[in-house]
Amino acid sequence: VRIAIDAMGGDHAPGAIVDGALVAARHLPAALSLVGRVGAIEAELARHADRDRLDVRVVDAPDVVEMADPAAVVLRRKPRASVRVAAELVAAGEAAALFTAGHTGAAVLASHAAFGMIPGVDRPALATIVPTRTGASVLLDAGASVECRPQHLVQFAVMGTIYARLALRLERPSVGLLSIGTEESKGTELVREAHQLLKLPATSSLRFIGNVEARDVYTGRADVIVCDGFTGNVALKISEGVVATVEELLRAEVARTFTARLGYLLSRRAFRRFRKRVDHSEYGGAPLLGVDAVCVIGHGGSSPHAVRNGVALAHRFAREQFVSRLRAGIEAMPRGAS
Amino acid sequence: VRIAIDAMGGDHAPGAIVDGALVAARHLPAALSLVGRVGAIEAELARHADRDRLDVRVVDAPDVVEMADPAAVVLRRKPRASVRVAAELVAAGEAAALFTAGHTGAAVLASHAAFGMIPGVDRPALATIVPTRTGASVLLDAGASVECRPQHLVQFAVMGTIYARLALRLERPSVGLLSIGTEESKGTELVREAHQLLKLPATSSLRFIGNVEARDVYTGRADVIVCDGFTGNVALKISEGVVATVEELLRAEVARTFTARLGYLLSRRAFRRFRKRVDHSEYGGAPLLGVDAVCVIGHGGSSPHAVRNGVALAHRFAREQFVSRLRAGIEAMPRGAS
Repeated sequence: VRIAIDAMGGDHAPGAIVDGALVAARHLPAALSLVGRVGAIEAELARHADRDRLDVRVVDAPDVVEMADPAAVVLRRKPRASVRVAAELVAAGEAAALFTAGHTGAAVLASHAAFGMIPGVDRPALATIVPTRTGASVLLDAGASVECRPQHLVQFAVMGTIYARLALRLERPSVGLLSIGTEESKGTELVREAHQLLKLPATSSLRFIGNVEARDVYTGRADVIVCDGFTGNVALKISEGVVATVEELLRAEVARTFTARLGYLLSRRAFRRFRKRVDHSEYGGAPLLGVDAVCVIGHGGSSPHAVRNGVALAHRFAREQFVSRLRAGIEAMPRGAS
Repeated sequence: VRIAIDAMGGDHAPGAIVDGALVAARHLPAALSLVGRVGAIEAELARHADRDRLDVRVVDAPDVVEMADPAAVVLRRKPRASVRVAAELVAAGEAAALFTAGHTGAAVLASHAAFGMIPGVDRPALATIVPTRTGASVLLDAGASVECRPQHLVQFAVMGTIYARLALRLERPSVGLLSIGTEESKGTELVREAHQLLKLPATSSLRFIGNVEARDVYTGRADVIVCDGFTGNVALKISEGVVATVEELLRAEVARTFTARLGYLLSRRAFRRFRKRVDHSEYGGAPLLGVDAVCVIGHGGSSPHAVRNGVALAHRFAREQFVSRLRAGIEAMPRGAS
């Protein structure tokens, strides 16, 4: 299994990407195609003495995507951007999966353009693992599809269920619809209509438990939480903000006593652990579900360790025929429901 | 200034409501109309020896709103619910402001029905104070208007600015639009169109600073954060959930050592403080902006202390002619913009 890696994407690219990818190449083992500026990638590879014993190819892609670039501009004006060339390798069958820690919007558009969609899925969804008191849940969409219709949320529910089986090893994960009250009359028109679709017998293969309020996202009330990409992105980013602010407020408390400082050291560790769990780089990244090939999107700040995990995740999806499973799951849904 | 109080609304009603309201009556001083079941209210009043020296009336309202009642049902089938009777006292000029810690949806509908809207405002918005690293910001709408159009967000921006002047004592509060990226091309159609309206010269009386990402809500990047009621409600409730979960995870860490336990005691205090700041009951409640009279909605779990603060807030709004200021602010907006 060969993984195409966007070596130029991410805050610490190409160094952290190459380092992390090589760890994956050694230990999985996996074959890699590192895509980006050849000179920069070779310079990083030169630091690895065992480079010649690993199955690593370097593929040239001279265009560089800036984080401030609108995704559409990348697609229109940067045909040889590393994420696009890497996606095209997968589309051409030269690699089995794509990993990128770069610009999320560009990764979504590049994957969509190169892979197309799984039949029956209209919009892609980024599926994030969120920590809960009891373990973890899958929240989707985390920001790939900002504007959704009710049937898109049903499709997300199906894909999220299949992903939760694989990622959380649950036989029959429960599905909740994110809303502002548990009653089915609560929420936007989008949410209320999606609720009705999810209740239909056609979707009875899903274990739909109804609406879930935002305060229950982290209690683990549902294994899969479904929402549009705008709401999902706001929910995840505000969570990061809260953790950072609580930490800041705690820090402000501790200047006083020795005991307080000890307490802070303890808390800081627990916080870091929580933040790590919130940060999807610790899971290696979030799969982009719905496109017709494996794409794993890592956090922009990915460390070599996170890149290693992300490449391993992409590798596992490819090896376990994850996209075929998604296809089968979507196909099994009666036409009216999805 | 007389305040009409929904004595039956809230988890600890009528006890906590009556106790808190009487503290406000003593110290502001304020005249009160306590609305609800007369027998239950009188039983609570009997515990207060100075009751006869306070200007407190009891107004009968026999219908009780259950938290599970859909708001529309309350409006259709419970004409003598305490929140409705209290709102009608205000509408009839017998009280200057309404305070309730009951069912939010019912309070919104009852206020809307009894007061009508300020001319130029189409939808009400619940304005919550959120704690930030540098102080506090106003976030609206926190859940009164689930479905919004772009011009509604502009109206929220105007009302939020006027509220921030009063509540945060800022001369010229900055306004940010909650989105999933700072670029004006980011977000839903609603957000992108609202961004364009907020940039128009017609709204130049607002200090609009552009989009604000959810991770910046608690950093204080904007003094006023504007969003639709669905997004606002999700953002605030997930924040509560994160704090509760971090606390839970910290608790799980501490069974081990004495030092850890000390640390936990410290952290717990800081957490409680943060949660208090998140919880709008500490600000006494959130004003419902846009309806044509003062309505302050307290947290369902309001303690007597929170009720006291909420009544004081309603009292202050009435005394400082807050609704007239909102009217003037909205009137000053050119027609095209709002």
